[in-house]
Amino acid sequence: MKLYTYAGAPNPRRVHIYLAEKGIEIPFQQVDIMKRENREPEFMKRVNSMGGLPVLELDDGSHIAESVAICRYFEVEHPDPPLFGTTASEQGTVEMWIRRIELNFMMPVGMVWVHGSPLTKAVVKRQIPEMAEQNRAVVRSYFDFLDRHLANHEYLAGEFSFADIIALCTADFAAKLNDLPHSSEQAHLSRWYQSVSGRPSASA
Amino acid sequence: MKLYTYAGAPNPRRVHIYLAEKGIEIPFQQVDIMKRENREPEFMKRVNSMGGLPVLELDDGSHIAESVAICRYFEVEHPDPPLFGTTASEQGTVEMWIRRIELNFMMPVGMVWVHGSPLTKAVVKRQIPEMAEQNRAVVRSYFDFLDRHLANHEYLAGEFSFADIIALCTADFAAKLNDLPHSSEQAHLSRWYQSVSGRPSASA
Repeated sequence: MKLYTYAGAPNPRRVHIYLAEKGIEIPFQQVDIMKRENREPEFMKRVNSMGGLPVLELDDGSHIAESVAICRYFEVEHPDPPLFGTTASEQGTVEMWIRRIELNFMMPVGMVWVHGSPLTKAVVKRQIPEMAEQNRAVVRSYFDFLDRHLANHEYLAGEFSFADIIALCTADFAAKLNDLPHSSEQAHLSRWYQSVSGRPSASA
Repeated sequence: MKLYTYAGAPNPRRVHIYLAEKGIEIPFQQVDIMKRENREPEFMKRVNSMGGLPVLELDDGSHIAESVAICRYFEVEHPDPPLFGTTASEQGTVEMWIRRIELNFMMPVGMVWVHGSPLTKAVVKRQIPEMAEQNRAVVRSYFDFLDRHLANHEYLAGEFSFADIIALCTADFAAKLNDLPHSSEQAHLSRWYQSVSGRPSASA
């Protein structure tokens, strides 16, 4: 078993934090996204036909791509401490927040990145600056939504969960690569951010 | 327990198909999206702060929004027949395909819908026709990807799974509301489509 990864990229980082929280150690193999090694025909044929990272290679030679899918694999094998909930209600609630973060936070940040960064010109047929601008406003508005939710909740979905991990990675992606930090006036969001980014796993 | 839903909309339909596959019957309450009943303050305060559908109301008065989260809730309570996989490898593979369909198929179809339909003018600050056009090409290209995969696989992720359910709902959303049908020349995709849309659950 090994993980194809690229240190520092937002989606691989989710898996590294998850593994650190679980205390799981597996071999990593770096694939250089900036050199487009993940788009080389051999990689796409053998490892991930979509060309994305991270990808988990199992001992039988099969592959599981997508950060959330990799962590769900490990959750079955290593259920404690639970990071996707345990009861039906907990599992549903964690999944609800995973999807809210993906669709309403990561997706618009991704649009800002893809349509607004000089580093991603090759990703789309043509960058649409207005798309980046529209989504900057969506992200700022979503920070307010998160701030209101976290006024009454320590974490996004009950106990600390994978939803917090992907929200942390998205918040750092927004702030560090897209110049979209949340505001210190968003006191509840800021308290949450300090808490989750202060866990030892956050530096994994 | 009851499900807030809107008959015919692509995301609620996922849950209806899932429940039919499982043989689960629960009460439904229709919420009219076209009249924006899901955006009324009372609904957003009490049921879903994001204003989306479907939403499951549990007997303790709590709520789980997001189609996939609702189905994961039921999967814990009613594991047979499994629609999210059973072993770690199966669960990881189904999740991989759920995410591929969401991010690489549903997301671009959604962009065509939001930026290209007269029905969705109110959803974004301003519609960007070029965004719709770019994503039409992304969807057409994704049909080819699916066709290649289905040349060697009966279903997307091993046995029939929730990944097939969301792919079916997305394909119908693309074809019927966005004039983006797959081609009959995509023989493997067409064979899969005939198979999953021919199941009794597809009319749920």
